Amino acid sequence: MSQKPPAVIGQRAEEVDTPALVLDLDAFERNLDTLARAVAGKVRVRAHAKTHKSPDIARRQIAAGAVGVCCQKVSEAEALVEGGVQDVLVSNEIVGPAKIARLAELSRRARLGVCVDNLDNLRQIAASGARLDVYIELEVGMGRCGIAPGEPALALAREIAKAPGLRFGGLQAYHGRAQHVRSMSERRAHIARAAEAVNATRALFSRHGIETPIVTGAGSGSFMFEVESGAWDEIQPGSYIFMDGDYARNEWAAPLPRFDHALFVLATVMSRPSPHAAVVDAGLKASSVDSGMPTVWGKEVLKFTKASDEHGFIEGPDPPALGEKLFLVPGHCDPTVNLYDWYVCVRKNVVEDLWPITARGALT
Amino acid sequence: MSQKPPAVIGQRAEEVDTPALVLDLDAFERNLDTLARAVAGKVRVRAHAKTHKSPDIARRQIAAGAVGVCCQKVSEAEALVEGGVQDVLVSNEIVGPAKIARLAELSRRARLGVCVDNLDNLRQIAASGARLDVYIELEVGMGRCGIAPGEPALALAREIAKAPGLRFGGLQAYHGRAQHVRSMSERRAHIARAAEAVNATRALFSRHGIETPIVTGAGSGSFMFEVESGAWDEIQPGSYIFMDGDYARNEWAAPLPRFDHALFVLATVMSRPSPHAAVVDAGLKASSVDSGMPTVWGKEVLKFTKASDEHGFIEGPDPPALGEKLFLVPGHCDPTVNLYDWYVCVRKNVVEDLWPITARGALT
Repeated sequence: MSQKPPAVIGQRAEEVDTPALVLDLDAFERNLDTLARAVAGKVRVRAHAKTHKSPDIARRQIAAGAVGVCCQKVSEAEALVEGGVQDVLVSNEIVGPAKIARLAELSRRARLGVCVDNLDNLRQIAASGARLDVYIELEVGMGRCGIAPGEPALALAREIAKAPGLRFGGLQAYHGRAQHVRSMSERRAHIARAAEAVNATRALFSRHGIETPIVTGAGSGSFMFEVESGAWDEIQPGSYIFMDGDYARNEWAAPLPRFDHALFVLATVMSRPSPHAAVVDAGLKASSVDSGMPTVWGKEVLKFTKASDEHGFIEGPDPPALGEKLFLVPGHCDPTVNLYDWYVCVRKNVVEDLWPITARGALT
Repeated sequence: MSQKPPAVIGQRAEEVDTPALVLDLDAFERNLDTLARAVAGKVRVRAHAKTHKSPDIARRQIAAGAVGVCCQKVSEAEALVEGGVQDVLVSNEIVGPAKIARLAELSRRARLGVCVDNLDNLRQIAASGARLDVYIELEVGMGRCGIAPGEPALALAREIAKAPGLRFGGLQAYHGRAQHVRSMSERRAHIARAAEAVNATRALFSRHGIETPIVTGAGSGSFMFEVESGAWDEIQPGSYIFMDGDYARNEWAAPLPRFDHALFVLATVMSRPSPHAAVVDAGLKASSVDSGMPTVWGKEVLKFTKASDEHGFIEGPDPPALGEKLFLVPGHCDPTVNLYDWYVCVRKNVVEDLWPITARGALT
């Protein structure tokens, strides 16, 4: 059912049939290195594999210094463990007997963590026989999952201590909404408020004799603010390896290091309806548009103005001819990756490798 | 690489792990029948397989009277032919040597059609040795691909006549933009203008001794207007089998027959952050949001207000408890289907079958 490899090693990038998901290996490796240097000696890195869904990439992140990876779904964790990754945190709540049974099964094969924000759910996980690091997810401003900092979190920590198979891993404190707040100063302020909640909860736990091994969280748009605050022990950036159009619209300056666009959708002009318009063969099924349309790499005068299922509409002066290929920067990398079965890995414009996106479609 | 079957035959729907793509077989079969009765004796049906990407569904459409199917990509056509479908129109332009070579190869295994809107592209297809029905795509108001009606189209028709392996199939005239124009009268007006362009082009061809075998086009939101106009011989509806949130927002009345929602994303409540909010385990990777958020089936007081990659936020009075399951109606069925590997086919709430989405991710 999955798609065949979409390219041949040694092919030139512009010979690859389209649409294809192209990874620029030089830029990707620079991004791995940039992150490692930015946080060396300050925090641990637990890279987020929800972005890439690929054990090939997870192993390279670990080789670059990450302690392991995190992901959002049990099925992603299964694909990562199957691919040789031995330390995976499911940075999300896992609810329902079928998923908890799979989590318990997987916990016998790798070091596995999970998040909780509810006492009943925690008890079900404890009863499953799973051997897990359990992290309490704090609501620190994102307005999604997570328990309130302070006393409500303490009740969960006490319950974890009672469960024989479970070990208190620490606090999950991720401010997802802050990642795309455009202004640096506003992003910093969001993380400063999150740090207060984290520190107060850690201190409360400590007063009750519960030490917090790790505070983990942070994303590519904010992680140096978490590092600056001193409240986090571990960061979970995902998009830094690829970057995307939405991150490119953020104000971006020190202390955040600069990452390069490494992920592209290669597309072909399939129709030229007018002198100022070209239609490419990449639409909604080739590039996610939830965070804006793709941009045209290296040709800023061309605008990708609309997408239908299989078509992208490009407008501007002197658009490319029928059959020409364009590199597009996706608006949002994570759901775009989830549309493909393979990374076409390119270095200096030549296909060097093909990495399967093994957790593509891993929803459960 | 593809995902394992997500359910077991005989399971009750609410036991299926989530997120899952659920097809209500009773509603699906009613929709097949409703379309067949609405157009019987008036036009041929060539159902659009871009919507479902499944030979299992294509075969049922043909059993219900369709002459064949259409699709947008060569790789979709390959999956359909592989799945036993013998008459496939690629209702789209196919550009570039790699794709044209695959089209030529596939044309030896099934009755295959393709669309053209450019003379150079047509010559490349002719030179490939493909044996194809070639349709000229007219631009009839959608503003995407297609050649202008009248003389420019005539030049293409003359060129098709010269190519030994190619047969002039007719005109592709699809007004995609009209499908979601909310008002019935405006939709009818769009199709009336498209019909004028079609009729004028057909008459011009005829004056030059070229008979047009088939005029094909139309979608689920407009097809009875194409039928009424008398200008079309064949219709290409896709979404009618499933319907979605976006089609539900159209004004819908006779002559269009009523179709039922048959496609759902089953989701589980994974967090209850407040008395008026529930978070479900279905976000951007489980339901496409390009045409609006999903709606909550049978519980209209609940609103699906926002989606992040793996989470959906539901607000309203008395939201469901942790672990409860909800049926969501996707905003847009085509790109939602493309996120899944399997249809979980349910009848009267029991899993009756599992159909692979074999052309999921078929992008090239």
